Amino acid sequence: MPLERGTGRVRVAPQSGASFKIRMSEILRVHAPQGEQVADLFAFKEGNLACSLSSGRSIDYASKIFLSTGDVLYSNDSRRMFTIVADTVGRHDFLLTPCSQEMFEILYRCDGHHPSCFENLCHAFDAHGVRPDQISTTFNIFMNVKVDERGAVSVVAPLVKPDDFIELRAEMDMVCALTACSAEQSNNGSFKPIDYEVVRRPCN
Amino acid sequence: MPLERGTGRVRVAPQSGASFKIRMSEILRVHAPQGEQVADLFAFKEGNLACSLSSGRSIDYASKIFLSTGDVLYSNDSRRMFTIVADTVGRHDFLLTPCSQEMFEILYRCDGHHPSCFENLCHAFDAHGVRPDQISTTFNIFMNVKVDERGAVSVVAPLVKPDDFIELRAEMDMVCALTACSAEQSNNGSFKPIDYEVVRRPCN
Repeated sequence: MPLERGTGRVRVAPQSGASFKIRMSEILRVHAPQGEQVADLFAFKEGNLACSLSSGRSIDYASKIFLSTGDVLYSNDSRRMFTIVADTVGRHDFLLTPCSQEMFEILYRCDGHHPSCFENLCHAFDAHGVRPDQISTTFNIFMNVKVDERGAVSVVAPLVKPDDFIELRAEMDMVCALTACSAEQSNNGSFKPIDYEVVRRPCN
Repeated sequence: MPLERGTGRVRVAPQSGASFKIRMSEILRVHAPQGEQVADLFAFKEGNLACSLSSGRSIDYASKIFLSTGDVLYSNDSRRMFTIVADTVGRHDFLLTPCSQEMFEILYRCDGHHPSCFENLCHAFDAHGVRPDQISTTFNIFMNVKVDERGAVSVVAPLVKPDDFIELRAEMDMVCALTACSAEQSNNGSFKPIDYEVVRRPCN
């Protein structure tokens, strides 16, 4: 089916981020054109920054920690924000906050500036009046987090390949930001771009 | 060791909540005097509501989803808020948002008002100028959430017995709220009180 309207395919450079708007019923399609790359997504209801993406509500309502096709991402006030309508990977994370300067210092003893998804999300959202403390746990597209039977969490190489994608249908008008993740461990040791497009209908 | 200063033991009635302040180095001790009862905890840095409890940062830095003795609960800006210094139960939840009116409608098809931790936290925090959208994922003390190898989440009866307790040392001055949880499934079908006390030193 041809696209009726869209942004075209937009490239997010390695270790950077971008913001964009999406209208209800439009589709956000996210690709990792070189594979093995994570993209952190956060979103606010347009015109109401008190309404934002909620990991805790989404996991509760889905009764699972790994969301895929058919699952809904909810806001903090329990409204539907996105429905996953296609997903060729099937493994994303919704447990962890975006990587941050403090994360690199606490977990990896980094003692200089390190690019981070949190910094990139703050910059990307700044033009929309979003304060850093309003950005909570992101939906970490393609991030491969394992949780063992005792609850231990480990971050391993993403499963996403160059032809893979995920499609999320917007259930409200939103302001979003998306990153090409900056953490070595999340991206199997190298930093690659992320592509996204906003289309009125899915392309399949 | 005798208490040097404290609130005394305070009872939170079934399906209700309470707010209190705690100073850095004081201990919050939480009991379920009749057993099998969950208590949702949320906290802000005193004087800075932009700094609040973060599930995503805490799970990331602990590299596990089930926190117990020795683990730290972090804020959204990666500061230490609490350290768990004693825990006779060993199973608490940090994945799920507090139960809410919308949760009872979405998960249980409830069509009338249902008491909820979110409503009780909103009321308890209201005197401190906290808006509802500032209350995110709570540390759900004694809540027994199972996550299977495929990521499916289920809520089962709490393991806490009448003599059990958890102690959390405050790592900064905070405003807190704590509930006696209102959800049938989280408390094995009946609603019981929660007791807490704030003490300068642990009682053991």
